[in-house]
Amino acid sequence: MAEPIDFWFDFSSPYGYLLSEKIDELAARFGRKVRWHPILLGIVFKATGSAPLTLQNEAKARYSVNDFARSARFMGLAYRHPDKFPLATQNAARAYYWLHGQDCALARQFAHAVYRALFVDNRDISAPDTVLEIAAKLGVDRSSLENALQAPDIKEGLKQAVDAALAAGVFGSPHVIIDGEHFFGADRLPQIERWLESGGF
Amino acid sequence: MAEPIDFWFDFSSPYGYLLSEKIDELAARFGRKVRWHPILLGIVFKATGSAPLTLQNEAKARYSVNDFARSARFMGLAYRHPDKFPLATQNAARAYYWLHGQDCALARQFAHAVYRALFVDNRDISAPDTVLEIAAKLGVDRSSLENALQAPDIKEGLKQAVDAALAAGVFGSPHVIIDGEHFFGADRLPQIERWLESGGF
Repeated sequence: MAEPIDFWFDFSSPYGYLLSEKIDELAARFGRKVRWHPILLGIVFKATGSAPLTLQNEAKARYSVNDFARSARFMGLAYRHPDKFPLATQNAARAYYWLHGQDCALARQFAHAVYRALFVDNRDISAPDTVLEIAAKLGVDRSSLENALQAPDIKEGLKQAVDAALAAGVFGSPHVIIDGEHFFGADRLPQIERWLESGGF
Repeated sequence: MAEPIDFWFDFSSPYGYLLSEKIDELAARFGRKVRWHPILLGIVFKATGSAPLTLQNEAKARYSVNDFARSARFMGLAYRHPDKFPLATQNAARAYYWLHGQDCALARQFAHAVYRALFVDNRDISAPDTVLEIAAKLGVDRSSLENALQAPDIKEGLKQAVDAALAAGVFGSPHVIIDGEHFFGADRLPQIERWLESGGF
């Protein structure tokens, strides 16, 4: 059986959200699973000397906000640019890894719910309360998760995920790795498809 | 008749080369012309606080060199990453504007020849001699062009093109503007196609 695809992303990444809505289905068509890895782009950018698209320069910021929404329409997805953007995502990412340790299908559902809360419903997912509410709606015990968000091993787990991303050569979000081949950006979806179809091109 | 499409690019831009091989034909399918505007990305990057993809960080540089070639294969185009990269393009851009003042079809042929010299034949297009040789092969008088490369009005024309790019909101290469809508990157080709097809989406 083929190795799973690795999907690295930050919960505050618009193109990460777009790809998250497509990657599992695409991979499944080629008998592949996807491993999801939320990371903190702030640390990645600090390590690589980069910055969020909307904080680089005015022309690029203006372009990017328009392109997020246009790319969503192009891909048939809902998108509303959040009022709070960019924003911190360590609570959402920690919750993901804690859930993943218990129920990986539930963690996937949670990740979709977080992305849609931010990029469709304009929720402030940086707030622990929002993260807890999203998880509670999926049947997660709120106080257990509240404790987990402060647990040293969960914090350490996220730190290790970011270190692993940097070690793998990840420099942004979304970043997909298939059998050692890297694809950066939601706009690489057609190349990912051809790669899976042909085993490289 | 619909307004021409504006295509801004630097002769040292791999994705600019990829798009240059597709944009005229695509536009023609929708009855549109394309205005080509070579610019100097160095000045644009200085103004916007950016840098070439291969000079940002090691992971991104490695990714980009692989992605240039893979994107070319994906688009059915030849590509060989140049030994000298990135490199200065003011001689090629000045030659383009001088030729354009005399024969715009010839200028277009010259632009294709410069891009292919760099990204297929691994030529050092920063050297005036290479630019002169490429033009001479298209029947251009070598010594007239040699003088033009140093002519103050030609230098000024290129400077004005870069200023116009910045004023239009151009922040990289390739950058396409259709009826006020901006598309950045060769990977926006499918969105450009849908935009031309539907008059927006």
